[in-house]
Amino acid sequence: MTLIHAYAPASIGNISCGFDTLGLCLKVPGDIVSLSPNTDSCLNITSIEGGSPDLPYDPDKNCATVAIKSALVAMGKKDEGFDIAIKKGIPGGSGMGSSAASAVAGVVALNAYFENPLSPKELLSHALQGELIASKSVHFDNIAPSLLGGITLIHDDHGERIYNLPIPEDLHLTVISPAVTIHTADARALIPKSITLGDTKQQMRDIATFVHALHSGDLDALAASLNDRIAEPVRMELIPHFLEIKEAALEAGALGFGIAGAGPALFAFASSEKTAKDIEEAMREACGQKDLSCKTQSGTICPQGARIITEDEIL
Amino acid sequence: MTLIHAYAPASIGNISCGFDTLGLCLKVPGDIVSLSPNTDSCLNITSIEGGSPDLPYDPDKNCATVAIKSALVAMGKKDEGFDIAIKKGIPGGSGMGSSAASAVAGVVALNAYFENPLSPKELLSHALQGELIASKSVHFDNIAPSLLGGITLIHDDHGERIYNLPIPEDLHLTVISPAVTIHTADARALIPKSITLGDTKQQMRDIATFVHALHSGDLDALAASLNDRIAEPVRMELIPHFLEIKEAALEAGALGFGIAGAGPALFAFASSEKTAKDIEEAMREACGQKDLSCKTQSGTICPQGARIITEDEIL
Repeated sequence: MTLIHAYAPASIGNISCGFDTLGLCLKVPGDIVSLSPNTDSCLNITSIEGGSPDLPYDPDKNCATVAIKSALVAMGKKDEGFDIAIKKGIPGGSGMGSSAASAVAGVVALNAYFENPLSPKELLSHALQGELIASKSVHFDNIAPSLLGGITLIHDDHGERIYNLPIPEDLHLTVISPAVTIHTADARALIPKSITLGDTKQQMRDIATFVHALHSGDLDALAASLNDRIAEPVRMELIPHFLEIKEAALEAGALGFGIAGAGPALFAFASSEKTAKDIEEAMREACGQKDLSCKTQSGTICPQGARIITEDEIL
Repeated sequence: MTLIHAYAPASIGNISCGFDTLGLCLKVPGDIVSLSPNTDSCLNITSIEGGSPDLPYDPDKNCATVAIKSALVAMGKKDEGFDIAIKKGIPGGSGMGSSAASAVAGVVALNAYFENPLSPKELLSHALQGELIASKSVHFDNIAPSLLGGITLIHDDHGERIYNLPIPEDLHLTVISPAVTIHTADARALIPKSITLGDTKQQMRDIATFVHALHSGDLDALAASLNDRIAEPVRMELIPHFLEIKEAALEAGALGFGIAGAGPALFAFASSEKTAKDIEEAMREACGQKDLSCKTQSGTICPQGARIITEDEIL
């Protein structure tokens, strides 16, 4: 019996200035999808460890199996059956691309099993089918970084053009996950349907400056670009003590601060490992003062996305 | 008597995907401002050659002298007087930064006269005062490329952060100026006050992709990014046979096509000198069929902006 395991990491969509457009890849946490062929000619979810207890075992409702099924159909192998075990490292509703990671890990494992007939672009489009079941919105901003790693720029909703952007050497980040849950669909419903000309222009200038900053390694430009006039003003209401945590991060030296995807996870950029640690400490303290429990991590943007792992790498 | 001449080139603001944000510098045409000190302690416009006959000789109304006066005040030299001769190479109301070039040439000549006490950033802000008198709007998208050369990205309306972007080696452009005049203020009044979320997002994605394309030399990405959902849909009505000219350019191989600033000049990007010439020919033909007279030119984006020139360089 062949058993194949794929790991897909958490990711942060939007990155303040890039609503539905930018995403970045974290090293941890991540989801693991393990596949082994069965003789039932169908997809059978044998276990889901970690994550919310209400994650569906129905293969037509679970984002990993929906993505796998989409890929199987495209490969002309829809009668191949697999037993599927899912290990959730990323909490659902965290803003860190939990459903995207399961969908990506599923298609990466499947593709490896068949010796990689599908291109990255095809994998993205099948993973998107899984994401669509889970979050009800068609966006690549978590799927792309989870699959491709690094920082990704999405040009269109068809996945025709997705670009990897350079990561400045000194760039560090801190992530804080306050212990509240936000449903992506609820957070999306808050987004205004129209934007003033002034806000549109400034958002264009910010994202253009962000891309220039990454290419030129200019962290001053990066800091100036990290503004969000679209999602943050309405979504911050869903995150308790958002402004206090933001202030703590900026006072501790953050280059910028924002909501990870739909939240509640929050991220801050820093120009050194030390500053990233200082920010982590400052944000923990801000949460502690408000009796808000949270998890935090500091590190760098991970240049590598989803990958096949060995049995030994599964904790 | 010292006589000093500065040349400031024409420029194209917006570049389709960068409303009020992107600009590029042409080699020609350009405006020349010549300064010589007088003993009157005031600014005295002695001649204006070329350009519209109604360009003002009043130093408080002419964009070159308004910019010069602003710079003199900042330098603590407001009692220094100059005779000023202006040679307009860029037609007013063409969309090619005519007022910006005069303002830029004025401050560059003045700065050279006093041995360059002002930084480029300061020159931009004084030139902006001239632009403001002429076009009634505070934007750097023509001033920045005319002063700095190349392709410029403006992050804010205060001129705090303006960046020069790389120019891909093969990038050529063609410019066509149909014989109609558009007043910038009229063209600006057409711009909608709010933009749908979908259009805002796509415009963000386009400008981000444009910046990435320049840095990576990816002309396919560049072509995909050259869209304008803000100005083109409303301003194209002011330009006779816009759609026919656009179709001719794209059919001849243009990577993208758009309105230069407020128009009526139009530009097309090409991936070779030959294609740029083909586009030039195709656009001339499209105008000819409609009995619309026009001027055209093909070339590359000029990396050098305004500069001091010698007497011999003035044609």
